[in-house]
Amino acid sequence: MIPPKDINIVPFVSVDSMMQIVLSLGVERVLQEIAFYIEEDFRRWENFEKTPRLASHSHDGVIELMPTTDGLKYGFKYVNGHPGNARQGLQTVAAFGVLANVDSGYPLMISEMTILTALRTAATSALAARYLARNNSRTMALVGNGAQSEFQALAFKSLLGIENIRLYDIDPAVTKKCMQNLADYGINVIACKSVEDAVLGADIITTVTADKQYNTILTDNTVGSGVHINAVGGDCPGKTELHRDILLRSDIFVEFSGQTRIEGEIQQLDADHPVTELWCVITGKEQGRKSADQVTLFDSVGFATEDFSALRYIYGRLDETGFYEKLDMIADPDDPRDLFGMLIRKHRELA
Amino acid sequence: MIPPKDINIVPFVSVDSMMQIVLSLGVERVLQEIAFYIEEDFRRWENFEKTPRLASHSHDGVIELMPTTDGLKYGFKYVNGHPGNARQGLQTVAAFGVLANVDSGYPLMISEMTILTALRTAATSALAARYLARNNSRTMALVGNGAQSEFQALAFKSLLGIENIRLYDIDPAVTKKCMQNLADYGINVIACKSVEDAVLGADIITTVTADKQYNTILTDNTVGSGVHINAVGGDCPGKTELHRDILLRSDIFVEFSGQTRIEGEIQQLDADHPVTELWCVITGKEQGRKSADQVTLFDSVGFATEDFSALRYIYGRLDETGFYEKLDMIADPDDPRDLFGMLIRKHRELA
Repeated sequence: MIPPKDINIVPFVSVDSMMQIVLSLGVERVLQEIAFYIEEDFRRWENFEKTPRLASHSHDGVIELMPTTDGLKYGFKYVNGHPGNARQGLQTVAAFGVLANVDSGYPLMISEMTILTALRTAATSALAARYLARNNSRTMALVGNGAQSEFQALAFKSLLGIENIRLYDIDPAVTKKCMQNLADYGINVIACKSVEDAVLGADIITTVTADKQYNTILTDNTVGSGVHINAVGGDCPGKTELHRDILLRSDIFVEFSGQTRIEGEIQQLDADHPVTELWCVITGKEQGRKSADQVTLFDSVGFATEDFSALRYIYGRLDETGFYEKLDMIADPDDPRDLFGMLIRKHRELA
Repeated sequence: MIPPKDINIVPFVSVDSMMQIVLSLGVERVLQEIAFYIEEDFRRWENFEKTPRLASHSHDGVIELMPTTDGLKYGFKYVNGHPGNARQGLQTVAAFGVLANVDSGYPLMISEMTILTALRTAATSALAARYLARNNSRTMALVGNGAQSEFQALAFKSLLGIENIRLYDIDPAVTKKCMQNLADYGINVIACKSVEDAVLGADIITTVTADKQYNTILTDNTVGSGVHINAVGGDCPGKTELHRDILLRSDIFVEFSGQTRIEGEIQQLDADHPVTELWCVITGKEQGRKSADQVTLFDSVGFATEDFSALRYIYGRLDETGFYEKLDMIADPDDPRDLFGMLIRKHRELA
C-alpha cells in the first residue's frame, strides 16, 4: 500500500489519472474487479456502519455526502445531482471521494468519482443481474443512452456475457453517440425506435434516464415474463422511471431498504411492501431468481458501500499503476502540539 | 471570484498555501477578518441548514463530516479527533474542507483545514467573548498550551485587547513552547505553576485541553465572580473539562444547542437546562452579559457554520493572494452525456 513517508501527503487521483488507471488495466477488467470488491463488501455487509446519505436539497438539485466504514477504513463520497446542469455544459452528476484510515482518522486518498461512480454503478448492476437475471440472458434493452449507458453495456457484456444490446433514447443523437462509443467492444448494438421496440426479445431491461419529467419510461405491457429489470436512473424523492404496476408484478431487490424506500422506485409502494436486500442474496440468506418466468427488479439507487468498494479498489491500484499526484493536505508540525510553530518557521523561511 | 474557465478545475489550498495566505495577510488580521465573517453568518443564522455533525466513532477516535449551506454556497468539513495520535507524531485533529456552488453542485474549492480550524475556533472564541466578557478585560488564563493555544492568545489580543496571558499546562515543555511562539506578538505572557496560579486576576479563563483523562481542569473554587470562561476543549460525548458546579453557577452560551447538548460541557446537565445560542446575543434577541459579577460560559464545540464562514473567507482571498493549486477533479466531457467518450479520446491520445 501507499503509506507515504511524508505524513502531510495525501494521494490524489485526478480525472486524468483515473482515465489512465482504467485504460492501463482495461475498462472491462476494471468493471469485473470493482464488481468483485463490491461483492466482497456485500458479503460482509453486517460489518459496515450504514446510514442513509446526508442530502442537502435546493431548487436546482441536491448535494449529498455518503459515508460508511468497515471499522478499518472510512470512505465517503461527495456527489451532486442537478438535472439542469447539462444545459450549461456541466455534468448532471459529478463526484469525488475520500478513503481514510479509521485508526488515525487521516485521509489515505482523494479521488475523482464521476468516472468511478459510473464504473461502480455499472459493476453493481451487473453483479445484481448475475444473481437475478436468467442464466442464459444474452440480450439487453438499454433505455437511456446518456453518460452511464456505455459503462452499463460493458459491465453486462463482461460480467454476464450479454451479446446483444438494444438501445433507445428520446434523443436519437445520444443513441448514435452510444453506438459509436461501443463500436469496438465486440457487442452487437442495435438502435431502436421506441421503448417497445428496444425491449423486444430482451432478457434484461436496463433503464438509466436522468430527467425528472419522464417518469414512466416503462409501462406494464412492455415487460414480459422472465425479464430482469435493472432500474438505475431515478435516485431521489419524486423521481421514478417505472409504472407502479410493474413493481407490483416484480420481485424487488434493493441495496439498503432504508435508503431505497426514500429514493428508489419503491417510493411508489407502501412502506411495508416486501423487498429483499441484495447482500442477503449474495450471502445465500435469501433466494434470488426462483423461476424462469418470474419478473425480477433491481431497484438501484447506489449505496455508500459500493463507493467504499470502488475507492478501496482504486487505492489498491495506486502503487502498481503510479497514476496519482501528491497533495500537501495535512499540517505536519515537527511536534503535533506545535501547530503555530509551523507558521513561525514558514515566516522565517520567507523572510 | 474564481470561476475558472476550465470547469474540470477545482482550486486547492494546500497546507503550504494556507500558511502563505495567513502570513501574507498577517495572522492577527486574518483572525479579525474570519471573526467578521463568522459574525456575519451568525447574524443570518436562520438562513442556514443546520444538522448535528455526522460522526463515525471507533475505538481510537472519531471521524466527522460537518456540512451546512446558506442556500447559495454549500460547505463541509472532514475532521478527525484521535487523542492517541500525538504519541505517533500525528495531529490529534486534522481536517480539510470543501466549498461548493449550490446552483450547480460543483465544488468551488478544497482546502486544508487543520490550520484554518485553529484560526476559526480562536476567532469564534474571541467573538463570543466580545459579547460575554467584561468590557475592561485585559488578563486571560490559558489552560492547555497545545496546538490551539497560540491562536487563542492572538485572537483575544487582536479582537479584545487582552494584554496579559497566564499560561498553564500539565507539561511545562508545552508551556515553554507556547511562550516562545508568542514572544514577538506584544503580549505579556506569564508561565504559571498550577491552574489556581494561572487564574489569579484573570478576567477570562480559556480551557483548551485535549486528552480524555483530565476531565476537571477547572474546579468550582478556582472561578471568581465576573469571570468569562471560554471552554474550547472537550467536543465529544464523554469528554468535558469543567466541574459541574461551575456550570450551575454560570450563564451558559452555546453555538447550536442540539449539538452542544451531545458534545459540550452541558452534557453534564439536564437536557432542559437553560442555555442561550450565541447568534441570539449577536442579533440582539437575547442579552449577553448582564452584570459585572456574573459568571459567563461559552461552551464551544465548533459548528459547521463557522467552518463555512472560514472557507468563504479563504475562497475570497484566492484571487488576491494567488496561493492555490489547480486540481483536475471534475470530469468534463465535451458533451455531458458523453462521459465514456473521454476514455475513448484519452485512449487515442495515448496510442
